[in-house]
Amino acid sequence: MIGSYSLTTEELQEAYGDGACNCPSPNEQMALVFSQARPFDLVELEQLLRSVGWSQRPMRKVQIALDNSLLKVGLWRHDQSFPRLIGFARCTGDGVLEATVWDVAVHPIYQGFGLGKLLMDYVNRSLRDIGIRRITLFADPGVVAFYKSQGWLLEPKGHRCAFWYAN
Amino acid sequence: MIGSYSLTTEELQEAYGDGACNCPSPNEQMALVFSQARPFDLVELEQLLRSVGWSQRPMRKVQIALDNSLLKVGLWRHDQSFPRLIGFARCTGDGVLEATVWDVAVHPIYQGFGLGKLLMDYVNRSLRDIGIRRITLFADPGVVAFYKSQGWLLEPKGHRCAFWYAN
Repeated sequence: MIGSYSLTTEELQEAYGDGACNCPSPNEQMALVFSQARPFDLVELEQLLRSVGWSQRPMRKVQIALDNSLLKVGLWRHDQSFPRLIGFARCTGDGVLEATVWDVAVHPIYQGFGLGKLLMDYVNRSLRDIGIRRITLFADPGVVAFYKSQGWLLEPKGHRCAFWYAN
Repeated sequence: MIGSYSLTTEELQEAYGDGACNCPSPNEQMALVFSQARPFDLVELEQLLRSVGWSQRPMRKVQIALDNSLLKVGLWRHDQSFPRLIGFARCTGDGVLEATVWDVAVHPIYQGFGLGKLLMDYVNRSLRDIGIRRITLFADPGVVAFYKSQGWLLEPKGHRCAFWYAN
C-alpha cells in the first residue's frame, strides 16, 4: 500500500530545504517528506512529542537543545500551505565517533504503517553519510522490540545503560 | 590518606585554565588537578585510553570529537614543567536536556585510590552547573558496579541500551 504521490526535487528543495526527500506514503493522496532543514514550530513539536507520551519541557530549553543537536529530522505530511509535523527524531554527538538518538516519535494517527522504521532508516543513513559508524540510543521498554526487529543490538558486549539524576 | 599538597588559584589558572581545581590526592607529594581548559596532547590521550583497554582511533577523528564535545575533563598529575594526563572523561550532548558521558579513564597506575569517583563527581557537578538534570552513559560490564555504587541507576524505568553499527 506504499503509494505513488511524491514531490519533485524542486518542490522538496523549496518547501523543505537541502537534502529533503520523499518518504514512501501509506496513502496515495498523502505525500510525506523527510527534512533536516525545515524549521520546527516548537508548539507543534511539543504536541507531537506529548502525543507519544513524552513529558512537557521548557520551550526555551527545547530550542537550545535543537540548536545544539547534531541532526534533527522532521517527517512532514505535505501540504502546499501548511505542512504538518507527524514524525521527529534528533541526535546529539561529536560528529565523528558517537551519535545518540533522542526524542523519536511518530504521531499515533500515523503509526502502524512502518513510518517509524522508515524514519530510523533515514536517521541511520544520514549519520552514516557523515561518517558515523556506531549509533546509540536508550530505548523505552515499549519500543525495545521495535528497535530489535530493525537490527539494533541490545546491550552489545554486556553494555548497560546508566542514568544519573541531579538533586 | 587524601593529602594536602595543592595549587593556589593563581597556579591553577596559569597552568590549567579557567575553572581548574585541585583534586584530592592519595599522596601528599603529588598534586592532582581537574581541568576543562588545558589542551590535550592527542598521543598522550590515546595512550591513556589504550591503557584502560580502549581500541585505537584515528587521531584526526579524535580531535574533531574533542572539539565537538560538550565537556572535556582532564585529570592531571601536576608538574611545573610537564604535567601528565592520568585521567579523562568527556560528554556529548545538547547543553540543556541531554548529556552522555564517554571515554572515562583513570590510568591503571593511579587506580584504587578513589580517583574515578572524584572524576565522575567533577563531571556530574560540572554538568549540573550548566543546568543538566539527567546524565546518561553506556557502562562496560567491568564498570557497572562502579557506577552503581555511586548512585547511577541501571536501566531506570526499564530503559535498554541499543547500538546500531554501520555496515
